[in-house]
Amino acid sequence: MELRIGVIGTGAIGEDHIRRITNVVAGAKVVAVSDINVENAKRIAEEYNSVFYETGEQVIHSKEVDAVVIASWDPTHAHFVLECIKASKYVLCEKPLATSAEDCKKITEAEIACGKHLIQVGFMRRFDKGYKQIKSVIESGKIGEPLMLHCIHRNRIPGPKHTTVMSIKNSVIHEIDVIRWLLGEDYKSAQVIIPKSTRLAEEGLKDPQIILLETQSGVRIDVESFVNCQYGYDVQCEVVGEKGTVRLPDPANVRMRLKGVNSYEIYPDWSDRFIEAYDIEFMQWVNSVKQETLFGPSAWDGYVACVTADACTRAREEGSIVPIMMPKRPAFYDNEERGKRL
Amino acid sequence: MELRIGVIGTGAIGEDHIRRITNVVAGAKVVAVSDINVENAKRIAEEYNSVFYETGEQVIHSKEVDAVVIASWDPTHAHFVLECIKASKYVLCEKPLATSAEDCKKITEAEIACGKHLIQVGFMRRFDKGYKQIKSVIESGKIGEPLMLHCIHRNRIPGPKHTTVMSIKNSVIHEIDVIRWLLGEDYKSAQVIIPKSTRLAEEGLKDPQIILLETQSGVRIDVESFVNCQYGYDVQCEVVGEKGTVRLPDPANVRMRLKGVNSYEIYPDWSDRFIEAYDIEFMQWVNSVKQETLFGPSAWDGYVACVTADACTRAREEGSIVPIMMPKRPAFYDNEERGKRL
Amino acid sequence: MELRIGVIGTGAIGEDHIRRITNVVAGAKVVAVSDINVENAKRIAEEYNSVFYETGEQVIHSKEVDAVVIASWDPTHAHFVLECIKASKYVLCEKPLATSAEDCKKITEAEIACGKHLIQVGFMRRFDKGYKQIKSVIESGKIGEPLMLHCIHRNRIPGPKHTTVMSIKNSVIHEIDVIRWLLGEDYKSAQVIIPKSTRLAEEGLKDPQIILLETQSGVRIDVESFVNCQYGYDVQCEVVGEKGTVRLPDPANVRMRLKGVNSYEIYPDWSDRFIEAYDIEFMQWVNSVKQETLFGPSAWDGYVACVTADACTRAREEGSIVPIMMPKRPAFYDNEERGKRL
Amino acid sequence: MELRIGVIGTGAIGEDHIRRITNVVAGAKVVAVSDINVENAKRIAEEYNSVFYETGEQVIHSKEVDAVVIASWDPTHAHFVLECIKASKYVLCEKPLATSAEDCKKITEAEIACGKHLIQVGFMRRFDKGYKQIKSVIESGKIGEPLMLHCIHRNRIPGPKHTTVMSIKNSVIHEIDVIRWLLGEDYKSAQVIIPKSTRLAEEGLKDPQIILLETQSGVRIDVESFVNCQYGYDVQCEVVGEKGTVRLPDPANVRMRLKGVNSYEIYPDWSDRFIEAYDIEFMQWVNSVKQETLFGPSAWDGYVACVTADACTRAREEGSIVPIMMPKRPAFYDNEERGKRL
Repeated sequence: MELRIGVIGTGAIGEDHIRRITNVVAGAKVVAVSDINVENAKRIAEEYNSVFYETGEQVIHSKEVDAVVIASWDPTHAHFVLECIKASKYVLCEKPLATSAEDCKKITEAEIACGKHLIQVGFMRRFDKGYKQIKSVIESGKIGEPLMLHCIHRNRIPGPKHTTVMSIKNSVIHEIDVIRWLLGEDYKSAQVIIPKSTRLAEEGLKDPQIILLETQSGVRIDVESFVNCQYGYDVQCEVVGEKGTVRLPDPANVRMRLKGVNSYEIYPDWSDRFIEAYDIEFMQWVNSVKQETLFGPSAWDGYVACVTADACTRAREEGSIVPIMMPKRPAFYDNEERGKRL
Repeated sequence: MELRIGVIGTGAIGEDHIRRITNVVAGAKVVAVSDINVENAKRIAEEYNSVFYETGEQVIHSKEVDAVVIASWDPTHAHFVLECIKASKYVLCEKPLATSAEDCKKITEAEIACGKHLIQVGFMRRFDKGYKQIKSVIESGKIGEPLMLHCIHRNRIPGPKHTTVMSIKNSVIHEIDVIRWLLGEDYKSAQVIIPKSTRLAEEGLKDPQIILLETQSGVRIDVESFVNCQYGYDVQCEVVGEKGTVRLPDPANVRMRLKGVNSYEIYPDWSDRFIEAYDIEFMQWVNSVKQETLFGPSAWDGYVACVTADACTRAREEGSIVPIMMPKRPAFYDNEERGKRL
Repeated sequence: MELRIGVIGTGAIGEDHIRRITNVVAGAKVVAVSDINVENAKRIAEEYNSVFYETGEQVIHSKEVDAVVIASWDPTHAHFVLECIKASKYVLCEKPLATSAEDCKKITEAEIACGKHLIQVGFMRRFDKGYKQIKSVIESGKIGEPLMLHCIHRNRIPGPKHTTVMSIKNSVIHEIDVIRWLLGEDYKSAQVIIPKSTRLAEEGLKDPQIILLETQSGVRIDVESFVNCQYGYDVQCEVVGEKGTVRLPDPANVRMRLKGVNSYEIYPDWSDRFIEAYDIEFMQWVNSVKQETLFGPSAWDGYVACVTADACTRAREEGSIVPIMMPKRPAFYDNEERGKRL
Repeated sequence: MELRIGVIGTGAIGEDHIRRITNVVAGAKVVAVSDINVENAKRIAEEYNSVFYETGEQVIHSKEVDAVVIASWDPTHAHFVLECIKASKYVLCEKPLATSAEDCKKITEAEIACGKHLIQVGFMRRFDKGYKQIKSVIESGKIGEPLMLHCIHRNRIPGPKHTTVMSIKNSVIHEIDVIRWLLGEDYKSAQVIIPKSTRLAEEGLKDPQIILLETQSGVRIDVESFVNCQYGYDVQCEVVGEKGTVRLPDPANVRMRLKGVNSYEIYPDWSDRFIEAYDIEFMQWVNSVKQETLFGPSAWDGYVACVTADACTRAREEGSIVPIMMPKRPAFYDNEERGKRL
């Protein structure tokens, strides 16, 4: 039996997910779509043989819809997720779960009240082969206890209307989640360093930034965020342990010897870099929904990431080291322990 | 509408394809299985919720079956493929298409007589990202005309009952097909060199072997075949053009700095190395069957590969350079031209 | 005519330099040695066919000695360098130039008073092929203006009696000098982060440490210092510019495919890693002394490095961001401009 | 005491060696030069403060000359080497030792008659760090017995007046020597394959060529020779053993991420690629001459390389597999055993 999915938001990433569910994921199909850009949503509904709905609420409450994917404008995420909880439907919500920690908190409270794990947040890096290998190496004990992580997150050029705050809230939030998942512990402080800005960024944008995080056990993390690096989309991550290090490989592209250099391509965009992670994320989400046991990143993970990103933003604004007050995890999310969930 | 697939042969690779069709490929399901090992086939039928049939013929002619996958014992391939043609059903046949060139020829004649392209041969490397990138580089003209290819095909250890002839007919046949596809031309001569054999091979096995091929335009290819290399499964391919070279990357595994070395894992088996190629092969085959336009490797490709492998075997036995008499391609297979089909 | 060199200090590095001058460097020979470990110094004098002197002062003032190499205990450096200035003899002093900024200042004042550039400090990384290539890439403008540097300085295990402060003053001081040379500008602030310490360090040692530096134009640098990393001696340096990045290669060691991994050796020690840099440093120093025009790192470079290391140490002790008050460069050292000197 | 060297031949490579002896090698100086291009030789004599002689014979027999370097036109090598034997002087002769096996044989006979090892042939690859590491790995037994070698020897463009025969006699001769040294055994057959020629070579030149060699124990070697590869100077060598492989690294140049690719430079010329090997070759030769015990490649090595290159040439001309009749090694050269000499 195929899982019938409704997709709210048919912009670039929403349409990509519709294509993915239709062509790549076994056992699922898109039956309903909605977007504020009605014309485009209708075109996509037709192309993918699904039904256009006027509102996201209609998608969520439709009897034809078993589960929901939210890929709409960030400020609408919280509302739609809460609506899914009301309808008691599984939902995969693109990051961020909400644009404020307060809203994230409300969502977790509603999920607890409903008594069922319904929410998965779109932190797809947990499904990337490289990050999974790193986690496996850490857990094997081969490199000893992790002491430091050095991370790089570079975009060739930013999306339209990119702001200094978005570099953390929409981009580095991926590192915030995946590192916490790799280490199995929460953060306790944040600091942001602002290097000389590139002249190739739009005026007013602070780019690059360096985010410094400290975990509760004292592991130190530095994340370079650089959204105008010009040369490609480049994500790097090295974990330094007591006895050795492990790091993400570059994607495997052919090696060329030509014109005096040995080279390989660096992808221009995140969609190429993480295409397999997205595919696996959706395949596993569909299967886990069918088995009624989610194991991807939870609402709690979305909440904690939001709290951390907020602290980083404050640290940047104040130019100081900011302690992170992590909310106490309710028992409902206890299966969040390392190894229990993904 | 899901494509209903019957699978003949439920050994290791057959079962893997059943899992793939069920869990990974969108829009298809396994409805029928058959194998001479009845007990195992029944177990698999139950596990994957499909029906066990006593014979392959029954699978092929079942009204419940839209298309067939053949993964049975090599000597049975030709018979089942011919039966699929009789039933006018699409078939994906694992390599080799047949164990003799004569049988391959019969298959192409039957397909021509039936007037419809029904057959795809399981040369999955054409779906591997690395080989596709190499083909794209060649066709871009960046490295000029190809002049030489240096290829490596190493297995950690061979399967049971491996023989000297199987190194070519079951293993190097992948290179035979994929190089011909990369270059868009056929071979005209073959030679086989037998180096000192490893003491770690079973007695009587000539291992390694070096296969030398020449294309009709004069491109020279060397393929090292080494089925007892001990350290892992390793496939390499470098195309040397007039202006530069392009080569397969190693699979992207994490980089470790530990105990005095910088290292990354080499996969132990072909199933890890080419898992994505198999997935894509099946996804695209299912889609192309639904659209009734195959574009993967054809019966003609299977025939030509068999003729070439036979010539290599004779070259090895005779210790001489053997000219390859390529059959003339019927008009029916004319869309085989470079770029027309995959 | 061979340059006659006196060497003060015949410990590990001193003896290595004696071997280097004797066997590797053209146009120079060691004629005089001295050390507080008299027995060992006498043995070395005999082995290398040179003369043992009771004191460093005797070496410096000997008529047989044209130029001096100082490789003695750090606290003696300043005294011997000043003595060389008195004797008006060229001197290559191992880093650090002195153990206090005050002493460094005295040395530069004495050198200015004597009116002749006599002093070179042993910052051999400026002679390393990789760093020279990085400098050349920066100056080519290919990667745009540098914005950030990410550096790693790891030792397998520390030398005996290693202390937290030595990680900066004796080890990271190499980065302090070479980065300033790469960028052609001085620092303006320092911060030190102390991650969770490895359990494999001696008790009381803070290891690893992360040193954060800011240049006057706003370039931000992070240097990981880890003296107990266990796996080898590893120096990395990546410069991130507005349009691209450039980084040091690992040393070229053979690639092995063995036991499931593709690997290459990481050197265990700095002496292997930088052996060629030391060789070139000495060759070029000997030639520049003969031509009476030094172009390696000057007393001023040694002074500035010491001031910066002191600031880092204070930053670590205070746990704060410390502004670096750089002394004003006297006109005498004006040829220190980027490109004028090495 | 400095070794006083006479250099015969002051073309590109001769002048480079003069610079090397003067500036890089400790304990030696050039005191005499000679060349048929008198004007250039005089200029060089003046620049390097040495004496110009009308003839090579005068250089060899001069009382001012302790040892001789021959870098003149290939056909003159044999004569000058024989003259050095007459004068009982040590000589480092650039490869080839002679242009015919007959002349090589005469040289070995003369050296035996004189009773003293005087001759070293300029096969500098034996001094390359990468090849030395490969030899060390083979001898460690880590990869088991060697079974195959895959070698690449590519030049960006050939020197002037390059011919098909020179690709083997002047270029692949380096592989012929170094592989024999790596394996510690001689060859027994040769074959040459001529792929489609590049259109970027001068008319009439067969380029690339593939040389196939077989050692007496059955190890098989393929060497791609490609003198017009356009992209750079590229030497590769992989030894495949029973349990693993070892291969030369590319030279360590900085890694750049720029304009969509990760790249590093491949040197344009052999002089950059092997500069350190040449330096070490000369340093060690000077030291071994001073100690009167040569351990670099001997006249016998030069003879055997010539015999092998001749067989390859015949194999190419005849298009057949040619057995190599190796002369029996006289007892005088018995210290040629693996490990005894370099």
